[in-house]
Amino acid sequence: MTTVDGRRARGDVSRASVMRLAVDIATVQGLEGLTIGTLATGANLSKSGIVSLFGTKEQLQLAAIEAARQIFIDVVIHPALQVAGGRARLEALLENWIAYSETRVFTGGCFFAAAAAEMASKPGVVRDAIAQQHNEWDEVIRRVITRAIDKGELPPLDVAQLAYEMRSLLDGANMDSLMGASTAPYSRARAGLRRLLAVEA
Amino acid sequence: MTTVDGRRARGDVSRASVMRLAVDIATVQGLEGLTIGTLATGANLSKSGIVSLFGTKEQLQLAAIEAARQIFIDVVIHPALQVAGGRARLEALLENWIAYSETRVFTGGCFFAAAAAEMASKPGVVRDAIAQQHNEWDEVIRRVITRAIDKGELPPLDVAQLAYEMRSLLDGANMDSLMGASTAPYSRARAGLRRLLAVEA
Repeated sequence: MTTVDGRRARGDVSRASVMRLAVDIATVQGLEGLTIGTLATGANLSKSGIVSLFGTKEQLQLAAIEAARQIFIDVVIHPALQVAGGRARLEALLENWIAYSETRVFTGGCFFAAAAAEMASKPGVVRDAIAQQHNEWDEVIRRVITRAIDKGELPPLDVAQLAYEMRSLLDGANMDSLMGASTAPYSRARAGLRRLLAVEA
Repeated sequence: MTTVDGRRARGDVSRASVMRLAVDIATVQGLEGLTIGTLATGANLSKSGIVSLFGTKEQLQLAAIEAARQIFIDVVIHPALQVAGGRARLEALLENWIAYSETRVFTGGCFFAAAAAEMASKPGVVRDAIAQQHNEWDEVIRRVITRAIDKGELPPLDVAQLAYEMRSLLDGANMDSLMGASTAPYSRARAGLRRLLAVEA
């Protein structure tokens, strides 16, 4: 968006420092609540300063989604991929997700659950970006399940079905926790996931 | 809000006819997108006309939640309560929910899933009203499960756990369907629910 000169380098630093704020505004106020104006106010910058960093509101929303994606990869996916075992990697992935929601990595719980519900019926590039994240997360779980099957640590089961049930239990606990302000839902998620994994290879 | 006279009677008629539009705006644009202005434009009424029918934006949002609740009771809960059997009533309740989401009774899928995700982190009376609906729905499922246990048609199981898992599978299918624009998620929901019910009393 800017030329490769001093402006761009300084912009990258400011951009990174404002980006995390943008992501948190989006999880609390919604992606539609993340505007040039709300971000300018929150970051104590001028509106024109925000525009020079992010461009349009839509570009700002897309940048927030990408920033949230990187955080999600760092805290949920990458640590699980360090685990060698097939079933153990799957269990690590699920437990990382529970911790990601329970510790409120994002103030409003899972960023993607909130964004998907908000944007589901609003066609456009922002909705498409969220749908892509939704599918990517499903793909990650499917790949980790498939790997456990290939290693003989899970029986040959319906991968798409199991991935859907696991994602649903995680999302359900996230929402129950947000609605009830309690941690009991995460215990239920763990119990439900244990039962889903209580199958012999 | 208005006195019991001709104004009130005419208001009730107009109010009902505009209310369904308000609910649909809320499922697509979000509760925060349901404003005096958007509703006035959609209903082809003046803003002052909308204000005289609904009062403040917050009162309008609360009225939309109550209208959505009545529709949900009519299409999901009441027909299930006509079913005499214990397990059969539970199965009817779940199937009615799937049909409610799949047939898009509300344009944006489940009204309450969208509203809960949107309002989760925005303290206030609108969030509280949504949280109450969330809990009421959980209570309904729990009561129907408990009744099936009391009738000896389900074994004595963890009612809160089963209610959570069932709600999660339903919500997960609703979101997968909205994100992927496919009906496959509902087949997965039915398969997952069948498995949850595959227990002998």
